[in-house]
Amino acid sequence: MPQARRPLSALDRVFLAGETRESMMHVGVLAPFSPPDPPPREFLRTLVEELRHMPRAYPPWTLKLRFPELLASPLQAWVEDDEFDVDYHVRRSALPSPGDERELGILVSRLHSNKIDFHRPPWEVHLIEGLEGGRFAIYFKVHHSLIDGFTGMRLLMRMLSTDPGEMDTPLFFARPPVERDAVERDAPTFDHLVHLLRDQMGATRDAARALVHLWRESRATDRPLIAPLQAPRSVLNGRISRNRRFATQRIGLDRLKRIARAAGGTLNDGVLALTAGAFRRYLGEQGSLPDEPMTAMIPVNVRPKDDPGGGNEVGAILASLATDVADPVERLRGIVGSTRRAKEQLQGMSKNAMMQYAAMMLAPMLLSQIPGAVGLLRPAFNVVVSNVPGSERPLYYRGWRLQAVYPLSIPFHGYGLNVTVSGYAGELDFGFTGCRDTAPHLQRVAVYAGEAADELEEALGLTKS
Amino acid sequence: MPQARRPLSALDRVFLAGETRESMMHVGVLAPFSPPDPPPREFLRTLVEELRHMPRAYPPWTLKLRFPELLASPLQAWVEDDEFDVDYHVRRSALPSPGDERELGILVSRLHSNKIDFHRPPWEVHLIEGLEGGRFAIYFKVHHSLIDGFTGMRLLMRMLSTDPGEMDTPLFFARPPVERDAVERDAPTFDHLVHLLRDQMGATRDAARALVHLWRESRATDRPLIAPLQAPRSVLNGRISRNRRFATQRIGLDRLKRIARAAGGTLNDGVLALTAGAFRRYLGEQGSLPDEPMTAMIPVNVRPKDDPGGGNEVGAILASLATDVADPVERLRGIVGSTRRAKEQLQGMSKNAMMQYAAMMLAPMLLSQIPGAVGLLRPAFNVVVSNVPGSERPLYYRGWRLQAVYPLSIPFHGYGLNVTVSGYAGELDFGFTGCRDTAPHLQRVAVYAGEAADELEEALGLTKS
Repeated sequence: MPQARRPLSALDRVFLAGETRESMMHVGVLAPFSPPDPPPREFLRTLVEELRHMPRAYPPWTLKLRFPELLASPLQAWVEDDEFDVDYHVRRSALPSPGDERELGILVSRLHSNKIDFHRPPWEVHLIEGLEGGRFAIYFKVHHSLIDGFTGMRLLMRMLSTDPGEMDTPLFFARPPVERDAVERDAPTFDHLVHLLRDQMGATRDAARALVHLWRESRATDRPLIAPLQAPRSVLNGRISRNRRFATQRIGLDRLKRIARAAGGTLNDGVLALTAGAFRRYLGEQGSLPDEPMTAMIPVNVRPKDDPGGGNEVGAILASLATDVADPVERLRGIVGSTRRAKEQLQGMSKNAMMQYAAMMLAPMLLSQIPGAVGLLRPAFNVVVSNVPGSERPLYYRGWRLQAVYPLSIPFHGYGLNVTVSGYAGELDFGFTGCRDTAPHLQRVAVYAGEAADELEEALGLTKS
Repeated sequence: MPQARRPLSALDRVFLAGETRESMMHVGVLAPFSPPDPPPREFLRTLVEELRHMPRAYPPWTLKLRFPELLASPLQAWVEDDEFDVDYHVRRSALPSPGDERELGILVSRLHSNKIDFHRPPWEVHLIEGLEGGRFAIYFKVHHSLIDGFTGMRLLMRMLSTDPGEMDTPLFFARPPVERDAVERDAPTFDHLVHLLRDQMGATRDAARALVHLWRESRATDRPLIAPLQAPRSVLNGRISRNRRFATQRIGLDRLKRIARAAGGTLNDGVLALTAGAFRRYLGEQGSLPDEPMTAMIPVNVRPKDDPGGGNEVGAILASLATDVADPVERLRGIVGSTRRAKEQLQGMSKNAMMQYAAMMLAPMLLSQIPGAVGLLRPAFNVVVSNVPGSERPLYYRGWRLQAVYPLSIPFHGYGLNVTVSGYAGELDFGFTGCRDTAPHLQRVAVYAGEAADELEEALGLTKS
């Protein structure tokens, strides 16, 4: 096997330089599976035994950092781990009783709080048993410098089959490699925005300087768009600490689309409305709801004005969450109007201006990772709401049916709560990843998002499906 | 409640200054419990619910460091944590199937590998369910700067009752405080040696300088005793990495005493013989058994020559493990002879010289924590074998019977494997705590220690009890 080795981009360096015990740059996926009938005995035990005897693993899963103790080393690179130890990367866990969603959330919160070991390839898979109903779950965790969340989700999906009878599927790392750069770039995700920024930063080694440069340039060229970059300060926008909370929610895609369409909006407007309803109630209960409307940054697909082929590009918009509006329908309408105006603005831009604009939004977020920066920089927005593509069709792993795919993302200093959703088999799966201290009782945000859907349906005169 | 606040001793500072991601200075106890008949339903769930509503917690369990980001700060102190969060400190976990000792070992190894969060009081309790036979286990972990292992074990024992009918026992941290300095000092444990060193170091702030001074002084005054401070280098004596393995073994106290007495030795000689048998086979299989005999440092009780009252003092001896001897009985005899000579030497010393001698042995171990020191300093011995007092009588927690108390200790740079034993209800419980990379397949050491007992019994013509 040729010695794999991969240089780092400037942006990979940002994710490594930003890595501290408080600010950990790993992403993840939580995927529960329901058993076939009859359920096989000791499925996970047998699977792990099988993995121990697998012939080999493939890059990027076998890559580790050349300088694990000096992440920001200018000579940093990915090199093959000669002592790849599958037992370290694939772990079995179990839930305490009753093995419900709450217990699963607690375990995954803890696992997501543990720092990745850079002395090894920076990823872990946890096979979790003891879920109610004889189910199990996969929690997968990888550092963003090795694989981004979008690619991680894609690789997970690729491992699964639409055929419940397929029985000999290997786990992802035992499959031949996928070229990272071959990833299609038209899905509007946070990771794709980050890829845009990577392209703009080129091969610059000094990532912080490149970021500041990009940011200044954007401010100089896009004056009319700077105004919205003034989010109200909120408790969610302080420095973060080292522990994470993770909470989930599921909403039927049809329900959410119906809600959004009743106000002339899109699915993403529906996601924003649920987030807004949840934030308003969650912060209101703590007595810390900002007077001004909170804002979200959302990656979107748009058609730049200079694209003759009519192709789509990934861009980013800032939308008001209208959290200052008490009436749920008025709030939804406020959101729909806000995203529509933002998209129209974006469509009026050239492709280049769109990318500058995206860079302008992302740069403050990344710059906030520099010690002392939070508090100096006002938050450019309050929360990132991102949509990672899942799958329309039900998927299976050796006969076990994938129930949901909940994405776990990165809370940043200044941006202590992340909302990422993923569509799967007619449902939209919400993953709320927060700092345990900045966003206490995060579970409530997830519950309130579900109740915001009920409230909207009732106010709009829609019956539940 | 008065604001609790406690200064740090020079030695506490050593344990904080030595703390890195590789070298973590926390100790622990693993304690499995078997159920009463009939077993109560949802015992741990109910217990944790109860804890959430307990009126208060007491120091030292509510103390955290004043400067969690600068452990070695000269202004470091213990201060009350105003946001004490019992949910953070008491956690439920579960074992994957089949919930046997192997799975328990893996989970506890992982938990012991996680760094303690110094932004909170530095301890955690994990209540682990899913053990075979309806059992549960407590894994308790605390930083050595807050509580030493000896005190931790004592507090755990104190929480338990000899009466299986006692039903309203609180967990340890909800009990009124125990003064740390009120701990009796006559048990021969590693922690007590460390206390001796603390007394010698006094209030010196610069702990490393004080250690070097002590060490030099000892070498100057105790020339005849320096010779044995030359252990062979072994794979167990390199730098350690960040992951831990933990393995356990149980041997009947009577069995072990009978083995030791057959060669004129004590229980501790029996422990050393099992350790030696295990090391010889374990290192032999790896092709890395040193030619010279390996040595162990053992805290012991001795009577100094200048003590008119005939009281005991804790001292330390270096004993040969006779790992170069193939015959098990000859090896045991070599060990018995070696410990006897070392104790005789110690009894010939004044109390002051004994303390100097202990300091001389401990100082290289603590000095090895300074970056770059391993490799410069030759190991003073190969392993610490320590005996933490448990309980002779069976103990219960709300009707659940304590089955065993396995101590978890600290692998140091240069000393990658620790053996600590504890006697409980007629058995001796062995805890082997090792660095995952320095001591791979640690489980084998535990298994081989058990087989070394069988081998000795057979060779000595003893029948198993």
